[in-house]
Amino acid sequence: MNIATHITLCTTGLVQQYQRVRTQSSALCEPLCVEDYGLQAVAETSPPKWHLAHTSWFFETFLLKPFTVNYAPVNDAYEFIFNSYYNGIGQQYAREQRGLLSRPTVDEVYQYRASIDAQMLDLLADQNHKHRATILQRTELGLHHEMQHQELLLTDLKYSLAQNPLYPAYHCLPPSSTQPSNTSPLIFCDYAGGLVASGTDVGNQGFCFDNETPQHKTYIAPYALANRPVTNGEYMQFMQDGGYQRAELWLADGWAMRQQKAWQAPLYWQQKGLQKGPQQDSKKGKAESKAESQAGQQQAAEWQVFSLHGLVPLELAEPVCHVSFYEADAYARWAGARLPSEAEWEHAASAEAIAGNFVAAQRLQPRSAAQPHKTMQQLFGDVWEWTASSYGPYPGFAAAAGAIGEYNGKFMCNQMVLRGGSCVSDRHHIRASYRNFFYPPDRWQFTGIRLAQ
Amino acid sequence: MNIATHITLCTTGLVQQYQRVRTQSSALCEPLCVEDYGLQAVAETSPPKWHLAHTSWFFETFLLKPFTVNYAPVNDAYEFIFNSYYNGIGQQYAREQRGLLSRPTVDEVYQYRASIDAQMLDLLADQNHKHRATILQRTELGLHHEMQHQELLLTDLKYSLAQNPLYPAYHCLPPSSTQPSNTSPLIFCDYAGGLVASGTDVGNQGFCFDNETPQHKTYIAPYALANRPVTNGEYMQFMQDGGYQRAELWLADGWAMRQQKAWQAPLYWQQKGLQKGPQQDSKKGKAESKAESQAGQQQAAEWQVFSLHGLVPLELAEPVCHVSFYEADAYARWAGARLPSEAEWEHAASAEAIAGNFVAAQRLQPRSAAQPHKTMQQLFGDVWEWTASSYGPYPGFAAAAGAIGEYNGKFMCNQMVLRGGSCVSDRHHIRASYRNFFYPPDRWQFTGIRLAQ
Amino acid sequence: MNIATHITLCTTGLVQQYQRVRTQSSALCEPLCVEDYGLQAVAETSPPKWHLAHTSWFFETFLLKPFTVNYAPVNDAYEFIFNSYYNGIGQQYAREQRGLLSRPTVDEVYQYRASIDAQMLDLLADQNHKHRATILQRTELGLHHEMQHQELLLTDLKYSLAQNPLYPAYHCLPPSSTQPSNTSPLIFCDYAGGLVASGTDVGNQGFCFDNETPQHKTYIAPYALANRPVTNGEYMQFMQDGGYQRAELWLADGWAMRQQKAWQAPLYWQQKGLQKGPQQDSKKGKAESKAESQAGQQQAAEWQVFSLHGLVPLELAEPVCHVSFYEADAYARWAGARLPSEAEWEHAASAEAIAGNFVAAQRLQPRSAAQPHKTMQQLFGDVWEWTASSYGPYPGFAAAAGAIGEYNGKFMCNQMVLRGGSCVSDRHHIRASYRNFFYPPDRWQFTGIRLAQ
Amino acid sequence: MNIATHITLCTTGLVQQYQRVRTQSSALCEPLCVEDYGLQAVAETSPPKWHLAHTSWFFETFLLKPFTVNYAPVNDAYEFIFNSYYNGIGQQYAREQRGLLSRPTVDEVYQYRASIDAQMLDLLADQNHKHRATILQRTELGLHHEMQHQELLLTDLKYSLAQNPLYPAYHCLPPSSTQPSNTSPLIFCDYAGGLVASGTDVGNQGFCFDNETPQHKTYIAPYALANRPVTNGEYMQFMQDGGYQRAELWLADGWAMRQQKAWQAPLYWQQKGLQKGPQQDSKKGKAESKAESQAGQQQAAEWQVFSLHGLVPLELAEPVCHVSFYEADAYARWAGARLPSEAEWEHAASAEAIAGNFVAAQRLQPRSAAQPHKTMQQLFGDVWEWTASSYGPYPGFAAAAGAIGEYNGKFMCNQMVLRGGSCVSDRHHIRASYRNFFYPPDRWQFTGIRLAQ
Repeated sequence: MNIATHITLCTTGLVQQYQRVRTQSSALCEPLCVEDYGLQAVAETSPPKWHLAHTSWFFETFLLKPFTVNYAPVNDAYEFIFNSYYNGIGQQYAREQRGLLSRPTVDEVYQYRASIDAQMLDLLADQNHKHRATILQRTELGLHHEMQHQELLLTDLKYSLAQNPLYPAYHCLPPSSTQPSNTSPLIFCDYAGGLVASGTDVGNQGFCFDNETPQHKTYIAPYALANRPVTNGEYMQFMQDGGYQRAELWLADGWAMRQQKAWQAPLYWQQKGLQKGPQQDSKKGKAESKAESQAGQQQAAEWQVFSLHGLVPLELAEPVCHVSFYEADAYARWAGARLPSEAEWEHAASAEAIAGNFVAAQRLQPRSAAQPHKTMQQLFGDVWEWTASSYGPYPGFAAAAGAIGEYNGKFMCNQMVLRGGSCVSDRHHIRASYRNFFYPPDRWQFTGIRLAQ
Repeated sequence: MNIATHITLCTTGLVQQYQRVRTQSSALCEPLCVEDYGLQAVAETSPPKWHLAHTSWFFETFLLKPFTVNYAPVNDAYEFIFNSYYNGIGQQYAREQRGLLSRPTVDEVYQYRASIDAQMLDLLADQNHKHRATILQRTELGLHHEMQHQELLLTDLKYSLAQNPLYPAYHCLPPSSTQPSNTSPLIFCDYAGGLVASGTDVGNQGFCFDNETPQHKTYIAPYALANRPVTNGEYMQFMQDGGYQRAELWLADGWAMRQQKAWQAPLYWQQKGLQKGPQQDSKKGKAESKAESQAGQQQAAEWQVFSLHGLVPLELAEPVCHVSFYEADAYARWAGARLPSEAEWEHAASAEAIAGNFVAAQRLQPRSAAQPHKTMQQLFGDVWEWTASSYGPYPGFAAAAGAIGEYNGKFMCNQMVLRGGSCVSDRHHIRASYRNFFYPPDRWQFTGIRLAQ
Repeated sequence: MNIATHITLCTTGLVQQYQRVRTQSSALCEPLCVEDYGLQAVAETSPPKWHLAHTSWFFETFLLKPFTVNYAPVNDAYEFIFNSYYNGIGQQYAREQRGLLSRPTVDEVYQYRASIDAQMLDLLADQNHKHRATILQRTELGLHHEMQHQELLLTDLKYSLAQNPLYPAYHCLPPSSTQPSNTSPLIFCDYAGGLVASGTDVGNQGFCFDNETPQHKTYIAPYALANRPVTNGEYMQFMQDGGYQRAELWLADGWAMRQQKAWQAPLYWQQKGLQKGPQQDSKKGKAESKAESQAGQQQAAEWQVFSLHGLVPLELAEPVCHVSFYEADAYARWAGARLPSEAEWEHAASAEAIAGNFVAAQRLQPRSAAQPHKTMQQLFGDVWEWTASSYGPYPGFAAAAGAIGEYNGKFMCNQMVLRGGSCVSDRHHIRASYRNFFYPPDRWQFTGIRLAQ
Repeated sequence: MNIATHITLCTTGLVQQYQRVRTQSSALCEPLCVEDYGLQAVAETSPPKWHLAHTSWFFETFLLKPFTVNYAPVNDAYEFIFNSYYNGIGQQYAREQRGLLSRPTVDEVYQYRASIDAQMLDLLADQNHKHRATILQRTELGLHHEMQHQELLLTDLKYSLAQNPLYPAYHCLPPSSTQPSNTSPLIFCDYAGGLVASGTDVGNQGFCFDNETPQHKTYIAPYALANRPVTNGEYMQFMQDGGYQRAELWLADGWAMRQQKAWQAPLYWQQKGLQKGPQQDSKKGKAESKAESQAGQQQAAEWQVFSLHGLVPLELAEPVCHVSFYEADAYARWAGARLPSEAEWEHAASAEAIAGNFVAAQRLQPRSAAQPHKTMQQLFGDVWEWTASSYGPYPGFAAAAGAIGEYNGKFMCNQMVLRGGSCVSDRHHIRASYRNFFYPPDRWQFTGIRLAQ
């Protein structure tokens, strides 16, 4: 079955999926006030409004402009303003200035979305379009692109809200599901390895990105994976054992970064009575360096973490989250273990059902592991798991032609692969072969640690 | 008549002035959409919302907290968030992050203002308060502080809006008054100088800032001042004569800055057909470096300037505006003249009436000089005039005690004095002895050039 | 045969090798004047004097201090000053300030070397030392460490001399061997791949670094390797086809770097008549940005390259050299090929003899390929060949215990593997399993390109 | 008497002075080893070799090239390499890279000097040269230029040597003259002020720089000056009273700089047992931040200072030295005094003989004040005294035409005036009207504090 056929059969499903995904973007923004839509704390964290517009731009640029007759853009300037990084389309408005676009307003962006949606649904309804196959294929890509940005919208927003000493909550209610309060024992599960298939091919099992292709053979020596991610409690032992002070546990670049940023704990951790909030201490300014002055007091004061629900107490049984690759690697070394390769992870994950704590659960925080459980759990959802693998092309990989080929391929350098999705991922967006990638120092995604041996 | 007496007599006037000034702040924000209130393009340009809150913070901090009983703050955290630079009050939220405060929302900030206003009017009504004199004095200071921030609100907003390739207008109508279209001849007016009085003393002629005191003797040699500011047309001759390419015209630090920033014209100037707007050229990103690539084409294309009314054609007869001290100094050298000292300027201005193109005229742009006119004009309003004087303490200057003494005194280094007010200044805020000050490279204020000899 | 036994058998050879290698360091410095010994253009390029001292520090720190009785250091401060990056030994003098150490003088550093040598030879002569095996093993490591620094001494010196507008030659004579002047045809040689052994184990075939171990299985799909490196002439076609202007050929990080550094050609290339030398044009300042202004003139003017023999004409048939990983990758994409993985490279190289243009030939420049030659050549020597492989630990890798374990392991992130050695490598230092590693933007090593398919 | 006549009369003296000054430059370098000649720790501190060459370049560029027939340069490239900042002559080799010029070698630079000297003496001997007056005038300027660089050579070298953890001494002997060991009482001397003459005119009293002209009237209110500079002991009281921790004592820019640089004491101060030297603590790296960790221990440990004689104990009675303008200003505020204006200083100094601790005394450190002494002392020599005056043009100032006019005028912005010369100034170079100027944060000159009221 070739790709075109595969997707044609799913047209009805695609229209439904289109509506589901597009509606989901606005639904995620419901708790926001107008002022929140423009927040951009650093270049990497785009404003919610920009995500809403850029995901529409994707459909406009790669579908409506090439495949509709006499397409009239809502505003010609949007091509420039809402282009993220596609040089094949043209130059881009400076990334770090996205927060300066007070216009178009929030209302205008929603009008832009509505206009794109109306025209997209017309286009999808045209069953005889001569580029029908490409249209369906790119629409599916556009929807996965939008699910990806839904996660970024939440992680970026969390980072930006965290800069505010009022610690505003995105979502005022407490995490919506209860969880086990005790830490489940950590067990290593053995895998035989061997000459296995890694990656996938288009059409194998529904959608995949080009960077997951082609399927290829990899040799893996026998290995073991921890049955759950590392918890906050375990990570705190690393901290109490001088984890952030012992250079020998760190990669050289990691240690340099730890020094430069004065890391003493994962992002968003702070100690009660020491945070920069109103009642406690309104005099402090700089978030990341705070923990520095707290060294030595780590056991004394109670830890809190900033979450999408505001400041909440640190739960020891929950998976540790918002750690960089460098911290994950140092922790693993301290623990006498290592991070898994992406081939090892994928091999293990291929046998598991894709289920877990995703965005639909509205927990928006990782969840502690189920009670005594000897088999693998939480590979999907909760936290993205750093692997030891640098993000590169699979043997035989070729990017698509044209600007759309810039989606994944040009980032295949300097980043590390993460696997499994998080508590703010859409479950429909995640699969065993999915390759996420971030730079080693990045901490603002929901990133955690699974050990290997 | 001592200060306390002076102000006591004006109480009724003060309450009226309080209401006028406070209302003016909100009036200036009427054209804004909610999204605009949070804009901060660089550290120096605070968001409108922050200006609205900080000016209220000033009354809260220096009047309500010390002089009312059981004062209950709207929010304890505001002391930290809305403190600009008063170390005596406590640490401050990072200046460059003011644009990240989506909360308090715009509505909440207006509620904050309303709460402060209600309590301030109560305090002002208490004629028997034992600190009555200080209260009146600080209230007057707070109102001048707020007028100062009203000007900054407009200049900061202009800078932030200019980063948007849609070139949004703050005020959609064209400049509200007509102006002469021909350039009035430039004439130098002679002054005898001599041993003159500079500066003023508290109580001399109404309000003054501490940095204008004490009045002191200065010796000025005979000098001449141009009867009007340099125009856009005259400045363009400097540009066409290689003004931005000839190192010999510039101070060393100015030339280094011109190189680093690739200055080729005043801030906000751009050539039609070359701007980064939608129709013309949606591919450009970086505003300041644009003009660089236009060297050599300067005569060919028509110049436009970004204004609070959006992009408008450059008017040759209008005073040149948004130039740094370095550009003003280079222009003066090229013109065979120099910039005036602040003592020269003040000596000349003392003889003139304070009238001109201020914010109330709603022109929001400098205005061209009146037709053939042999005497001094435009000393007040239109553009702040760079002087050759470094901003320092007058002989005998002493800052006030306590945190309020940080208002002016601690900035007396590295900045240059500007005089006369601009088209976005409040006329009640300006006087002959008024000393404004900015760093030599600063261009985002309405700054222009008056020549001396 | 265990390691200790293996080395014990070679003791005599080890002493001879010690003398050969140590003498070689001073021999390489013979052409220098005293002033050259302190040159450090950037943090990465240490002064010759520092290399001479640090290589002695290695023997002092890891052999003399632990294994001799009552060892008396020449100077206690050298432990701090000449420590490169061993946190286990202690903090280090700031890397970027090594050029500021006018003391110890050159003479004093040679005295330091002589003192170390005398004591090392005594230590090696003690056949009954209870740590004999470790001593021999570490001595061998120290000699390979020194051969590594000999190459760095030359590459660092080349970079530092290139900053001088007088273009001083390290070695005044022209390259000492003649070479073919025509370009040999490029042919791809096929390899079957399969499940192969990569890496090596200690004791397998003489010395190896820990990062080459353990030997492990890798699956390689069938592939082809070019029979020689890419030449200057071929690279110039890439340039003339807009290679440095076409974003679509580059990795995203590579393109950002190319923009930031204004790369237009490999490092050390410049066009005759445009260089910043005395006669031609004494007015230019900045080396790397020069080529920028030469775009469009590339065909007109004759290219020269700065070499260890001073400025010499560009030889089209020679391997292109001093390109970053980003340029190598962009070139390969332009050429419709790719870079080899390190496993592919090693698999091919395992079948070849280790011979070629190494430092002993005193050519100090890569050499053009032999005439029509259908088989593989130049895998060893000439230029280090960038691979597509990120530098990471082999499966099962474990760094040595203690400070000496910092040698290689802690750098296993963010760097790319290079293979094969260069025209300034010692032939005794190179083998098929050797893994060199540098950051993707690095250009100051003798780095070139071999294509794969 | 016009200028030309004045100098003509002094020709014999000029030749003698030429020989004296030129010889003095090489004499100052006698204690150096070849390796020291190339040291440049930061852009501002040029290598000794560069000073030797640049001062020769001055004679070559402004005298030999324009005024000798068929002048043949030693090396054409020197025009570019040894130009400091004269844009009128051409572009300059990057200032921060002067330490990278290992060639020309030290010997070659001395040969360059010899060649210039021979030709200069020929030129000075030509009594009938048609540009005789200009030649004499420029020669005198060139000699003052060289005396200025002799001081810089020592201050720059001191800074560069201080980066070496071995703390090498420039001059091994202890300071050559004894000094009082008790602190002389501080007394303020009153001056009546009034309308006084400031500055001087060419030909008034021997040589002066253009920035000292023209003489002009200034009004000075009655004032008082301390009879001696502030001592180390007095400055230590400021430190012990929290001087470096109390924002209210500092200018805003000064406080920002103090925070950024972590200043806790004057440059070159460190506490015994805490320095980064060999025996004590070989683990420390960064000089400026050291003192930070010593807060709170300031009374406990004994202070040392790095001097041109190496590390020596801090003498409490000596003038404090190597403080920035910001520190001088903060100290004065703490002491309830202020810094003098340059007009006040000059008015007082005009009445004093030019005598004191200059470079010829070979002390190379400031000297403590003479015992109980009620009149003014140490205005000349010992330490440059920061004034409260920003460096700007005197009324009527005009720079000389051509490149030579770049000497002083283009720096008249952002710097502060210093007066009186230091212990490393040439006594022939100093006079009451002499205006030195440095940026407010600069600390590497011998800069101190004299209080005014």
